Amino acid sequence: MKLLIEHAAIVASATAAIIENGYIVTNGSYIEKIGSGEWQDAKDRFDQVIDAGGCVVMPGLINTHGHAAMALLRGYADDLPLQEWLQNKIWPLEDQLTAEDIYVGTQLGILEMLKSGTTCFTDMYFFEEQVALAVEQSGMRAVLSRGLIGFGEKGESAKQEAVEFVGKYEGYANGRIRTMLGPHAPYTCPPEYLRGIAELSKELQVPIQIHLSETRKEVADCLQQYGKTPIQLVKEVGLLDRPVIGAHCVHVTDEDLDIIAACGMAIAHNPNSNLKLGSGIAPLTKMLERGIVVGLGTDGAASNNRLDMFEEMRMAAMIHKGLLENPLAISASTALHLATKGGADALFLGNSLGTLTVGSLADFIIVDFQKPHLQPRHDILAHLVYAAAAGDVRDVIIDGRVVIQNKACLTLDETQIFKQANQIVDRLLQRQ
Amino acid sequence: MKLLIEHAAIVASATAAIIENGYIVTNGSYIEKIGSGEWQDAKDRFDQVIDAGGCVVMPGLINTHGHAAMALLRGYADDLPLQEWLQNKIWPLEDQLTAEDIYVGTQLGILEMLKSGTTCFTDMYFFEEQVALAVEQSGMRAVLSRGLIGFGEKGESAKQEAVEFVGKYEGYANGRIRTMLGPHAPYTCPPEYLRGIAELSKELQVPIQIHLSETRKEVADCLQQYGKTPIQLVKEVGLLDRPVIGAHCVHVTDEDLDIIAACGMAIAHNPNSNLKLGSGIAPLTKMLERGIVVGLGTDGAASNNRLDMFEEMRMAAMIHKGLLENPLAISASTALHLATKGGADALFLGNSLGTLTVGSLADFIIVDFQKPHLQPRHDILAHLVYAAAAGDVRDVIIDGRVVIQNKACLTLDETQIFKQANQIVDRLLQRQ
Repeated sequence: MKLLIEHAAIVASATAAIIENGYIVTNGSYIEKIGSGEWQDAKDRFDQVIDAGGCVVMPGLINTHGHAAMALLRGYADDLPLQEWLQNKIWPLEDQLTAEDIYVGTQLGILEMLKSGTTCFTDMYFFEEQVALAVEQSGMRAVLSRGLIGFGEKGESAKQEAVEFVGKYEGYANGRIRTMLGPHAPYTCPPEYLRGIAELSKELQVPIQIHLSETRKEVADCLQQYGKTPIQLVKEVGLLDRPVIGAHCVHVTDEDLDIIAACGMAIAHNPNSNLKLGSGIAPLTKMLERGIVVGLGTDGAASNNRLDMFEEMRMAAMIHKGLLENPLAISASTALHLATKGGADALFLGNSLGTLTVGSLADFIIVDFQKPHLQPRHDILAHLVYAAAAGDVRDVIIDGRVVIQNKACLTLDETQIFKQANQIVDRLLQRQ
Repeated sequence: MKLLIEHAAIVASATAAIIENGYIVTNGSYIEKIGSGEWQDAKDRFDQVIDAGGCVVMPGLINTHGHAAMALLRGYADDLPLQEWLQNKIWPLEDQLTAEDIYVGTQLGILEMLKSGTTCFTDMYFFEEQVALAVEQSGMRAVLSRGLIGFGEKGESAKQEAVEFVGKYEGYANGRIRTMLGPHAPYTCPPEYLRGIAELSKELQVPIQIHLSETRKEVADCLQQYGKTPIQLVKEVGLLDRPVIGAHCVHVTDEDLDIIAACGMAIAHNPNSNLKLGSGIAPLTKMLERGIVVGLGTDGAASNNRLDMFEEMRMAAMIHKGLLENPLAISASTALHLATKGGADALFLGNSLGTLTVGSLADFIIVDFQKPHLQPRHDILAHLVYAAAAGDVRDVIIDGRVVIQNKACLTLDETQIFKQANQIVDRLLQRQ
């Protein structure tokens, strides 16, 4: 497959000079050429020529933390205290989810992510083979983990399943699927279990993703039980000797941040989820000051309630400016970096993803700027972060293949997915 | 003009029970009937029948603070310290704006607001007659003020213009235009000038809008100069004896809030603008605890950078949950109230606007829920606040007239406005 995108304003990265009228040529999964001005050669060698006049082309957005199938639970239980939300609402419903439900829920989540310009997402859930199936069929790129709760025999069998999952799916679907080990959190995985995961990560040569220091209570409990913060604990058990992306890190001390920086741990910052659940606001500027690699994430739709990386990008810029009473705290360029190259780096995929460069994977999006909220065209970067929205995404190309074209998904059946998703929740809530 | 909207899920207000399959009948400017189930009578007496199947109908969003023409400056100067932004960037450009520029800029702002579901906005700027013209032609509803800087002779002539503006435009365009007096702020209007405005407000029988306590520096300066907070100052000069809506109120003390509550002053809360300029986060929960009437606003596009009330509604809910580490701080229902009835009340128009009730003005919007991010349909209210976006607005009805139909504006020429807006900024920045 060879594509030519022409007449585009190209934002190759958060720091590159913008090409005002440019073209991109893809060849198979990769970007073959990027240039300025009109394409001069023959066009008949391309499978498709896309006119991006009036549009901006930018790297696809990378969602570094989430649970896609939780799209089924979007809006099911809002405005509740965290523990009541989890224990009385989310967990009981999750307990009833079948493999087929996870498949449909993941399709719904992927559909939303594709249409809002996400080209790679991270997932940690159960029935993860169903997630892999949905990813394969949708044309999406993803980094998948079977979620692990580390107690008793179930913990051991889950670990075995994780080994099999990595064996089967690492590099699957033309390399669009990558895998990680996914121990849920220090409060659901005892220290010895985490130690085993670190060893397994070394053996299998895959990174680790884990929830860390999301709430004030979790940190207090960890201090009480182990005399250590969650960050200190995962360092001690050897987890941070491996490539790790820690989700949240809202309640981290300066010492925690120094540990994270020294160990090269990456962080998935989920500003909307942290706000909505009342968890708090992570110290993003302190992370960046220390050179910590940070990506942005949506978390699951039950706690957001969107899987919309434009919202995360905007929120990451807005909230820290306001909280710190400093309009320079996080610039548009920094926010765009976090949502693209920062995310790729945080998933240890930065050598092939996150910017538009010759030889990189052809994952990019075309944003329609012929909208009142994107006019006049003073500053494209500022418009992308402060004014653009999911609904402005016109086309999405992943692995050199057009997946969203003129706002329609070419790989998934939207009507069917909506119908099935509503049937599932009717069944779960016995509303038929 | 008579309209029938049918097959809609109707959210008549933030607290009313949702009508799952209902209809709305309008007659002229007003809502004549709201009901549940199929419309049984003849349809030939309607000028238009709108099928809202799969959609949600809700009151139009009310933007209680802004400067529409600043849409021209969207993205012109971001990520700068507040004073540098104002003094070196915004003010010099504003100085060059002609009446015609204000007309085009306001059209651009109105177009964005209409397409994102706002049916009534508040404006304080200069060349306000141009704003009135754009409002009249667009079919929008608005509350307009000639902005007043209260120094010297210019302050007096501006006041005279304001008197003329109120005289000409109060109740203009079939009542779609209402007026207020708009003294800019205590730091730009000396106490004696504000005292005169209070008297004028009584004489003309119109309310007052004013910026109050937006930044920490402004409050410190006021304390130093007058020994009073801005709130104490406007009370002392008699302003709060009149109906007043104060924009921002970010840096207010508990005593300030008690004064505001006791005087019945309303507040326009602008969460995104306050974040983006690094002003801070207004104590919304404390305002509501005291029973203060609060609406939401976008402020101008140069400090937001959207005129999108869905974003303000979502942000108002999200940020206070996160800051207070309390997921119950502001519920979806409260946020929806602030953006509709709260806004109407804050503009002293609550008796005819803000809810869908028989006899109210026919200002409402139709939101398309056939979107991945609005499925499955657990909770319509939560979806409207936490998941819906400007891009989901399908139709907009104002004063009983369809202004946006299937996402297209029937009253303004979008292509022409984009072209003119870009020509204006090219001229201002001498980029031709």
